[in-house]
Formats: sequence, C-alpha cells, structure tokens
Amino acid sequence: MSTRPGKPVSESRVEMVEIALPNDANTVGSVLGGKVLHLIDIAGAIAAHRHSRRAVVTASIDEVDFRSPIRIGQMILLFASVNYVARSSMEVGVKVLSEDPLTGERRHTSSAYLTFVALGADGRPVEVPPVIPESPDEKRRYEEAAVRRARRLESLAARRARQSR
Amino acid sequence: MSTRPGKPVSESRVEMVEIALPNDANTVGSVLGGKVLHLIDIAGAIAAHRHSRRAVVTASIDEVDFRSPIRIGQMILLFASVNYVARSSMEVGVKVLSEDPLTGERRHTSSAYLTFVALGADGRPVEVPPVIPESPDEKRRYEEAAVRRARRLESLAARRARQSR
Amino acid sequence: MSTRPGKPVSESRVEMVEIALPNDANTVGSVLGGKVLHLIDIAGAIAAHRHSRRAVVTASIDEVDFRSPIRIGQMILLFASVNYVARSSMEVGVKVLSEDPLTGERRHTSSAYLTFVALGADGRPVEVPPVIPESPDEKRRYEEAAVRRARRLESLAARRARQSR
Amino acid sequence: MSTRPGKPVSESRVEMVEIALPNDANTVGSVLGGKVLHLIDIAGAIAAHRHSRRAVVTASIDEVDFRSPIRIGQMILLFASVNYVARSSMEVGVKVLSEDPLTGERRHTSSAYLTFVALGADGRPVEVPPVIPESPDEKRRYEEAAVRRARRLESLAARRARQSR
Amino acid sequence: MSTRPGKPVSESRVEMVEIALPNDANTVGSVLGGKVLHLIDIAGAIAAHRHSRRAVVTASIDEVDFRSPIRIGQMILLFASVNYVARSSMEVGVKVLSEDPLTGERRHTSSAYLTFVALGADGRPVEVPPVIPESPDEKRRYEEAAVRRARRLESLAARRARQSR
Amino acid sequence: MSTRPGKPVSESRVEMVEIALPNDANTVGSVLGGKVLHLIDIAGAIAAHRHSRRAVVTASIDEVDFRSPIRIGQMILLFASVNYVARSSMEVGVKVLSEDPLTGERRHTSSAYLTFVALGADGRPVEVPPVIPESPDEKRRYEEAAVRRARRLESLAARRARQSR
Repeated sequence: MSTRPGKPVSESRVEMVEIALPNDANTVGSVLGGKVLHLIDIAGAIAAHRHSRRAVVTASIDEVDFRSPIRIGQMILLFASVNYVARSSMEVGVKVLSEDPLTGERRHTSSAYLTFVALGADGRPVEVPPVIPESPDEKRRYEEAAVRRARRLESLAARRARQSR
Repeated sequence: MSTRPGKPVSESRVEMVEIALPNDANTVGSVLGGKVLHLIDIAGAIAAHRHSRRAVVTASIDEVDFRSPIRIGQMILLFASVNYVARSSMEVGVKVLSEDPLTGERRHTSSAYLTFVALGADGRPVEVPPVIPESPDEKRRYEEAAVRRARRLESLAARRARQSR
Repeated sequence: MSTRPGKPVSESRVEMVEIALPNDANTVGSVLGGKVLHLIDIAGAIAAHRHSRRAVVTASIDEVDFRSPIRIGQMILLFASVNYVARSSMEVGVKVLSEDPLTGERRHTSSAYLTFVALGADGRPVEVPPVIPESPDEKRRYEEAAVRRARRLESLAARRARQSR
Repeated sequence: MSTRPGKPVSESRVEMVEIALPNDANTVGSVLGGKVLHLIDIAGAIAAHRHSRRAVVTASIDEVDFRSPIRIGQMILLFASVNYVARSSMEVGVKVLSEDPLTGERRHTSSAYLTFVALGADGRPVEVPPVIPESPDEKRRYEEAAVRRARRLESLAARRARQSR
Repeated sequence: MSTRPGKPVSESRVEMVEIALPNDANTVGSVLGGKVLHLIDIAGAIAAHRHSRRAVVTASIDEVDFRSPIRIGQMILLFASVNYVARSSMEVGVKVLSEDPLTGERRHTSSAYLTFVALGADGRPVEVPPVIPESPDEKRRYEEAAVRRARRLESLAARRARQSR
Repeated sequence: MSTRPGKPVSESRVEMVEIALPNDANTVGSVLGGKVLHLIDIAGAIAAHRHSRRAVVTASIDEVDFRSPIRIGQMILLFASVNYVARSSMEVGVKVLSEDPLTGERRHTSSAYLTFVALGADGRPVEVPPVIPESPDEKRRYEEAAVRRARRLESLAARRARQSR
C-alpha cells in the first residue's frame, strides 16, 4: 500500500473544446467516431499527466457508444478526470458533449473510461499517487471504477484467448 | 428474416497501411492510442461500406487493449472485415499490427470490434444484406460476434444508467 | 441603446487545451508564434459564439507579445471570455499559458484582445446582447476594454493611411 | 553601433502563396483570422531568416485588421520583407492579399508588423546585420518602423502592467 | 486556330515557399518525394489558373528526378509558369529549390512538366488564351514544350497498352 | 553480379486504402493530382522497404497520367510491388483505383513507376537482394521494367542538359 500523499480528483480535471472541421466528418456531414475517440484519448492523457506528472501510455479503453451525431461547425466539448488509481495505472473518465454555436444546445455524445499507465524515465511502469475523491460524485465514480477494474481484469484473459482476428 | 441475398465475408475485407509520423506520437516516440483508434474506425467504416454499399455511422466500439507500442517510422497495418449482421447494423472486426520497415517484424498491437449502422438516403437506418461466413475462421467469428451482440445489448441499458460522467 | 437582455461574462467563458506537436514547432523545438495566434483566434471565436449565438468573423487583433517559449510536448492552455460589447462587435480577451506535463509548471505565454463581429443569416452585422460584468475582475476588464476600443477607433484611420506595405 | 556590413531589404524579400482549403474556413466559408495570422508568422519568419541567417523567434505582432474575407478556393498571397533592424531584433512587414482563381481579382486583406529576434547556437539573442533600405518605399517603411519601435517600447511596460487576463 | 488574344508568360508566373516540417520527412530526416510532388502540383495549378482563369485539373506529369535531399527545417521554393498552350491544355514548368535558413545555400532539387486542362462551368474542357513567350528563355521553353508535347502524344497510346499494373 | 539470395515479388506487395477528404480536393470536388502522387510515393516506399528492409529515398518517378477523377468521399486504393532491381535501386509499380462507397464501382485512375534507392546506416546506397518474378504477370513486368530502365538511363543525361527551368 502506497504511503505517498494522494491528490484530489480536482487536480487532474481537464476541459477541452474543439470545432468540428470538414475533414473530421463523413460524407453525410457528421464527425467520424474515430475522430471523437482520438480526442477522448488526448483529453484522457492530459488528465493522467496532471495526476501523475509522468509520461503516460494508453493501456485500454472500455466500450464506447456514440449516442448522437456531431455536425461540422459544432463544438466538441470534452471533460476528463482521474476516477481511480491502482499502483501505476489510472482510470480516467471522459465525457463528450456537442454544443451548437448558434443555439447553444448541448448533447451528451459519448462517455468513455480509459486506463493509462505512468512510465518512469526508464520507460517502465512507475507508481503514481493515490487519488482522493472528495465530492459525492467523485466518490461514486471511484466505487464504480473499482468494480470496472475487477471486471476488466476478469475479462482480459478470456478476451485475449477469444481474439483470433 | 431477410430474404435479400447475402454477401460473403470476403467481399468486405479491407487491408490498410499507414506510416507512423512524428505528429502521431507522444514525447516518448510511441503512437498515441487515440491515433490507432482513429485508424481502426476508418478501416472498419470501409469494411461496412463494402458490405452494405450505404452511408454508415459508428454506433459503438467494444473495449480495446493496446498490447505493444508502435514507434515513429514503423508501419501500422489494419485488417478489417464484417463478422456479423443484424438488420441494419454490422459488427466489424479490426486487427492492428505494427511492421518494422528495417526488420520486417510484425507485432499484434490491438484488436477491436465496432458496430456500424447503415443509413438510407433519408438518414434513417436501413436493412443490409446478411453476411455469409465461409471459412472456418469466418464461421467462428460469426458465432462469437452473436455472443458479443447479446452481451452488448444486455450491458447497454445497465451502462447508460451507471454513467454519470 | 439596446433593450435586449444582457448576458453575464461567465456565459461566454472558454477553456481550451492542446498538446504542442512536432509540426507546430520550429527547428529549435519551440512552438511557432503563428500557431499560438491560430489557437487564440479559435478560443476567441468560441467565446464570441457563446455570447452572441451567431456566426462571427474576426475583425482585428491587438498587439500580442510572446513572453516565454512553449516546447513540443507541453500543453497549451487558453482561457477566453467576452470583455465588452458594442452593438454588433465584441472584444474577447484570451490568455495563453503553457503547462509542463511532468512538472506541472505553468507560464504565462501571451495575452490577446480580439474584436469579433456577429453576422446575421444575411451575412451582415447584427446586434448582440450587452455583456454584464459581475466580478471585480470582469468590471475592471470591461472598463479597460472601453478605453482600448476608443484607442482602436482613433488609431484605425491613422494606421490605414500609414500602411503602404 | 554595429560595424558589420548591412544587407539590402531586397535580400530578405519573401513571396508566398497558398490555396484556402475547407478546413481553414468557418461555417460561412471564409478563412479564419487565425489561419491568416499563422501564415503571416511563417512568411515573416522566412524574411527574418533571410536577413539574419539565424534561428529566429517571434517576439511580438502589432495590431492586425481583417479588411475583407478570403473564400475557400481563393489564393492567399503573402509578401514580406525586413523593414528595420535593432541589434538582435528585426521588424518584418507582411502584406496579405486574396486572389480569385477565376477572375484574378486581388484584394488587400491585412497588413502586419512582427518583431523577430535572432538566436545564436546557445539560444541567446545575437546581433544581426543592419538593413539597408534602397527604394523610396523601403526608406519610408524604415522611418515608419523606427517610430513604431519607439511606440512599442513605450506601450510595452504599460500594457504588461494592465494585463490581468 | 484561336483568335483570342494571348497572354504573356509573365502573367502566370508563381513563386511559392514552404518550410519542411517533421511530418513531411522520412525517418532519416529528408522530405518525401511525394510531398515535393504534392507541392509541385499545387504550384503548377496556380500558374494554370493564372493563365486560364478557369477551374483546372492535372492531366499528366512528366518524369521527375529528385537530385538532392531537402532536410526538415529547410525551405522548399517553387517557381512555376506556363510554357505552352494547346487549345484547352497547358504545359506548366515547375522548378524546385531547397534553401537552407542558416547558410542561404540554394540547391536545385527537381524540375517537372505538368499538363493541366481548363474546364468550363459545365465541367468540360474549354479553350484557353494562347501564351506569348517574350524573353529568350521563355521562347526556348516554348519550343522545347512543343517537342515534349509531340513525344507525349506518341508515347501515350503505347504506354497505356503496356500498362497492366 | 549479386550472390545474395533473391526475394519473390510477392514479399513486397502493398495494398493501401484511404478515403478522399474535403481538404484533398479542388473547388470542383475532385482530388488533386498532387495528393494522388503523394499517396503513390508512400505506397511505393512501403514496397521498397519490404523488399530491401532498408531506409529508402525516391530517386525518380516516370510520367503519370490522371485518367479519371476521384471524388470527395470515394476511396483511393493503391497496389504496389517491386518490378525490378538493379544493385541498390528498385523499380516499384503502383496502380491507383478509385472505389465508390455506395456503388462499389472501381475505376483505374493512374499507374506509376518509381525508382527507389536503398541506403545503408551511413546514408550511402547499399546493394539489395535480387527480385524473383514468379507469375506470368510478374515476369512480363520484370521484362518491361528492364526496358524502361534502359530508356531512363538514356534520357536522363539528355533531359538534364535540356532543363533550364
């Protein structure tokens, strides 16, 4: 068990915004899922940097649903923070909203949970400070992240065995 | 049950290759997970186009692990094909390898399962042809995809209820 | 004098973050001033959208100093909000900081004042709601922006006459 | 006072052209001010390189007005040259025109004055050759640049004191 | 034979400059041939626009040699002008130089001849004004371009027959 | 004459696919010739890497015709393999097709022959393994490539003498 001092969730909080451009979209004018995933990974990595102050690599991303399309010219808002820490790995939650520049309407597009691993100068995993959930929401996310982590560890071996393509 | 003639898996097969560039990598020189996810979504969308010959949108992506890093200057190889079809939605499997230009060594980086929905000219979901698995591998993937689809439908409602961030 | 209801400054507040990539930098590894200006304009435009909920174009940018370099791999943070409104034009203030991912050190890189004009559906300038400064900082910025606006109008004719190249 | 031999203005002259692409424009089809500023900085840096044959960084940019919009598919023409030199810093003037590919009509979009600083191999400012204005236009620009430099030095301290956001 | 008034070569002249960025280069730091060809086509298209004031498409490019490498951070200079006109098609010559920002050394990297076709509003080829070579160099290029055109027409049928891959 | 063991053509085969984006196209919506040349060079370089397992640079590209336009949203398919080897240089053939995502129609857009040179760790040309054509098509391409190589060597001196622009 780590005796390093923990950091509150609020220190890793990230807010990011980007305008959806023509090259980000398919021929029917909605932003590609892959572009959204790219931004999710960047927002998540910044949160992981802020918590660990280390080089980080993405170890995995949980399943992501795309609930509503984002159109060219709309804004893509991303909110990320560290939910849970396990030695050298961090679960980061990222929420994606679209915002229409003319109406201001915001829609929940996607939510994602990513696991990042902190690396030391030698490129090997290195322990990071514990995360301290403070608000009720942060505490709930912490509990849920612990459950997800257990499920992830269970399914990992099974999934790898199953994957032939 | 559809009476439209099916298409063999081989008709939707995609092979894609890209060289990893400096802007795709983090400061320790390995390609960002988000860049890999972006390419996975594009390869998957091409497979879904080839099967359905329709406009397609990404509905979801299952959990993805990043097993081994890809370095700047290495090639990123992607192989995709349609595993399973359910009315207007298609599960596409995408396998990602890195290939070193000097040694030729290939490493399995990630595997992903995405669900795409085919859209008609009115932007609404439209039925697509059944997929016909032919080889033993294709038949195994078809069976596994049916199981994943059931699991996905189960977890969807649960996950949406859980997600507050 | 407008009788349209005003909006508080807080409604147009923007926070943006981007990681500095190799292609953004010169050969000595520091981010180009032009890249920073590009991001300043985008952050400013989002603030102007949020205040006006209109299409907006950049009319001008005041002088900008680049105080300290941003290195590849560091984060570029931008904070923007509407300082002042005059019929169809808005002054937006943008502050740029760098943040080191490993040390967390933040440095003030630049501050900028841009004027955006709101356009109606016919492409012509259209009146926007007054802005309501609430905090002492917002009130001070509002006063300073009024002074800058007067100075800008004075110098505009003079500058245009002077400019031959 | 430098005894190094000077260089005529003509040796630092730059002509640059780029076609405005969809990703450079806002949703009403006109090029973002920030994109124009990005190009202005690049053109200016090339002029500063040509005069100093040194690594250069942007120290500041004076106020810039955007007089007329540039449309997707139009050409963006930039003309830059060194107006004035003060030890290690250079004022570069950049003029931006749009050119319509079908009509050939050219419009003056913006003019900008940037200050670049030359850096030696140790990353510290290094003296550059004096600039020699030859034509009447170059001599006028030289005089005006000297006035701007005095004004800039005056306002710098004042502005820094004023800037809280 | 056209009775439309001709245009001198000088009216289509193009000068373009770009700084070579990390993403433009291979892992040994020299700019990809394909990036140079991309810029050659853009410079050529601008010359063709300036001569014809029409939409243009690239019909062909003659053989191109890459004589000397361009390094990241060097400038890529392109000079283009229309050499010859045949009804709706134009031969454009493009010369590419590298320029080192620190030494000023310029090296001839490549020369290319491209054929562009002018299109009317209906998307079909449309006649363009004759080109008027004025200087001895322009006249020599005009004569040489006429020879190249004859050789191109001869080899076209032969080459198409030969090409199976 | 090399006594190093040869490699069959099949080992250098490349298949690449990319979706044409708005920024790749001109204002009439068809992909720029220069973008296609850029992709041709990348596909060719990958084939040359696969044959030689060395760093490679593009030495030349033969004439290329653009037979039919590619539209935004269509796929660009590239097929490349090594046709012929001469000590340190390789001729790579690249075939480009467009594929419509909705109809599946494929059109032959361009064919190109490029010469790549393999470089050793010291940056100097280095011998590569002979290529072994196996199928009748590969044998025909090998013979044709030998003829092209002879023609290329003949014309090189002549062309360089002729090129003044």
